[in-house]
Amino acid sequence: MAYQGYTTFSAEQDGGVLTVTFDFGPVNVQGQEMLEDLMGLAMRLERDRSVKVVVFQSANPEIWVCHYDTNLLKDMSADAVSRSEAKLLDLQAVLERISKLPQATIAKLEGVARGGGHEFALACDMRFAARGKFKFMQMEVGMGILPCGGGASRMARQTGLGRALEIILSARDFTADEAQAYGTINKALDPEEIGEYVDNLAKRIAAFPAESINACKQAVYESIDKPIDEALKAEAYWLYQATSKTPAIKRFQIADEKGLEYDLDNQRNWNDLVMKVQEIN
Amino acid sequence: MAYQGYTTFSAEQDGGVLTVTFDFGPVNVQGQEMLEDLMGLAMRLERDRSVKVVVFQSANPEIWVCHYDTNLLKDMSADAVSRSEAKLLDLQAVLERISKLPQATIAKLEGVARGGGHEFALACDMRFAARGKFKFMQMEVGMGILPCGGGASRMARQTGLGRALEIILSARDFTADEAQAYGTINKALDPEEIGEYVDNLAKRIAAFPAESINACKQAVYESIDKPIDEALKAEAYWLYQATSKTPAIKRFQIADEKGLEYDLDNQRNWNDLVMKVQEIN
Amino acid sequence: MAYQGYTTFSAEQDGGVLTVTFDFGPVNVQGQEMLEDLMGLAMRLERDRSVKVVVFQSANPEIWVCHYDTNLLKDMSADAVSRSEAKLLDLQAVLERISKLPQATIAKLEGVARGGGHEFALACDMRFAARGKFKFMQMEVGMGILPCGGGASRMARQTGLGRALEIILSARDFTADEAQAYGTINKALDPEEIGEYVDNLAKRIAAFPAESINACKQAVYESIDKPIDEALKAEAYWLYQATSKTPAIKRFQIADEKGLEYDLDNQRNWNDLVMKVQEIN
Repeated sequence: MAYQGYTTFSAEQDGGVLTVTFDFGPVNVQGQEMLEDLMGLAMRLERDRSVKVVVFQSANPEIWVCHYDTNLLKDMSADAVSRSEAKLLDLQAVLERISKLPQATIAKLEGVARGGGHEFALACDMRFAARGKFKFMQMEVGMGILPCGGGASRMARQTGLGRALEIILSARDFTADEAQAYGTINKALDPEEIGEYVDNLAKRIAAFPAESINACKQAVYESIDKPIDEALKAEAYWLYQATSKTPAIKRFQIADEKGLEYDLDNQRNWNDLVMKVQEIN
Repeated sequence: MAYQGYTTFSAEQDGGVLTVTFDFGPVNVQGQEMLEDLMGLAMRLERDRSVKVVVFQSANPEIWVCHYDTNLLKDMSADAVSRSEAKLLDLQAVLERISKLPQATIAKLEGVARGGGHEFALACDMRFAARGKFKFMQMEVGMGILPCGGGASRMARQTGLGRALEIILSARDFTADEAQAYGTINKALDPEEIGEYVDNLAKRIAAFPAESINACKQAVYESIDKPIDEALKAEAYWLYQATSKTPAIKRFQIADEKGLEYDLDNQRNWNDLVMKVQEIN
Repeated sequence: MAYQGYTTFSAEQDGGVLTVTFDFGPVNVQGQEMLEDLMGLAMRLERDRSVKVVVFQSANPEIWVCHYDTNLLKDMSADAVSRSEAKLLDLQAVLERISKLPQATIAKLEGVARGGGHEFALACDMRFAARGKFKFMQMEVGMGILPCGGGASRMARQTGLGRALEIILSARDFTADEAQAYGTINKALDPEEIGEYVDNLAKRIAAFPAESINACKQAVYESIDKPIDEALKAEAYWLYQATSKTPAIKRFQIADEKGLEYDLDNQRNWNDLVMKVQEIN
């Protein structure tokens, strides 16, 4: 499947990893063009089990995705809507679709991400950021609105309620180290190490079965949207979704035949064992 | 609107910031008087859009709010109630009303806060604490009860489940640094810096439109009480609540006319840009 | 009540603390034997108010609980089930029962815990781990499945969504310090200090009334499964559950008669005060 013809990014597949590189104008603005590209990308990825991990990065040395195109906001309605009338906004719909892709998604943040740019990062499964290069801000409160690309909804799912409120109400830049301390990113890394770190993680995940990756993702996302008794049932549901499509049983049989597991020496080395099982298949 | 006539605190408005200073008896006990004062304060604040940020502090050099008045607990019922009979307790009702105020609320913790005192801090949007001066404890398990001013309900919304359980089951003092590590406060600060830090944050937020502050708050609180699809719809609902009352569109138009946004130089300086847009209005 | 006759662990009661020590074969595998033992243990503990705290540890110098017995997975169904057909798996059912025990539960992690072993730790209320000895991994994604002993459901209840997804999708070992930073454990401790630390915590909690411990636990677990207004009502419900069975009122009366509370000197010393109230009873 060719990942070509995009206006705001290029996409290159290497094995099971698709790297998407934003490169659009001076600041990678998140406008109509980018939303269309992302929606097109999501439609392809939903049907493509050859891609197992998507890494989003930027060609711009300073900016990852700057923010939503304010030109799209200038004809925004000034009428209140009722609760029942409220529908998903375009940006919300695109980012929610990205969030639930069957692939594992990684935001590799080597530049600033503000407003809708940062909300896009929040819609990815994981976020890694380069110290000194990454900053994020939700400036919406100062513009008379709120983070409405899922930012208000997703922030406290990463960090505690108090820190989510501070981020969204203070409308200031947060550094990579602050983001790590608050938990909005997985980890802050030095600029010279982030490339290899994300590469290794992406390749590791890409070695695993596509159906398991999807089942893991969907179960984790469902887990926090449901009470524990329903979350556990969802977990069981996703187990059988995975095993009905992936030779999991064979993996366990082979692991067992090889005596990989019940030996103390082997227990010391699961980091490699889990990769060896992939070679077997 | 005059914020006067309270028994347990004084309140002073400076621009959009209202500073509430607890000063009641030797230990700032949270009794009938304080609950009445807080309910009265909440009723005024709900109608007052001139106040955008409320800072809660204490005049007592050692104690913020000590704990709930145990005299109010001595005639507590010893009868179990059924699930359907359970109604909000007085302290729960007052603190939930404080929690959902349209203003941003900050607990400036320069003394100890235990039991209901700490539960009051948890009902604020943000918490900053002075090292060496702040400690918190939920001692209820040792008194034969549980934290029932919203403490059992709100603790895990700030920190993980395991740490919430440890705090509530161990009934011991936690320091400012421990609170920061566990995420029950936003940040621990040195005693000589907390004043300026909170002042700057309060003034920054107070520069933003009242309707956006409220919309941000309510959307974030709703976000963790709802599955993501409903949270996103609430976010959209709050967007139009804000834009129907605040000239957000004008802000974007002006920002655009001034070329504030799409220039790389400007992108470097959003911390100030967001304040400049406030001057325009 | 005798805690005897188990195949995979021994259990020793000292005052209100029951210490369960896994010791089964070379690697403490989590198989049929361990599940049966745990279910039997849970049935007894649910009726025993003399035990207030349960500490789970291992006699194996390297391994806490290694992982689920893969032999039980080899005849796993390869048929997908519908949402409505999905039922709790055996491991899920046992661990959910452990999770909701009336006792406070502590995982004392001085060896590795992977897969179902780590999911068991996640089902405990608190987790403390020894640096250099503890590692954890959820390797399921690499085996064609997902963490289905409640791991996918419980991970993000301890840490943010992004870090939960990284842990479950990367299938790699995490150290005690990484676990502390991500919040999957309460605290990492040096190997020589973890024993005393957990002992002190267990004894402290065991001094408190059994009904309060249970009420605290259940209210905290319910809190994150419900919107705040329902969580608060559950909190009120559990208050009366506790006070109907425990002489809480008497505690407050005695505390008050002794003048324990409203004196500034006493306020400085709540860490001990809360224990003194236990001696009174």
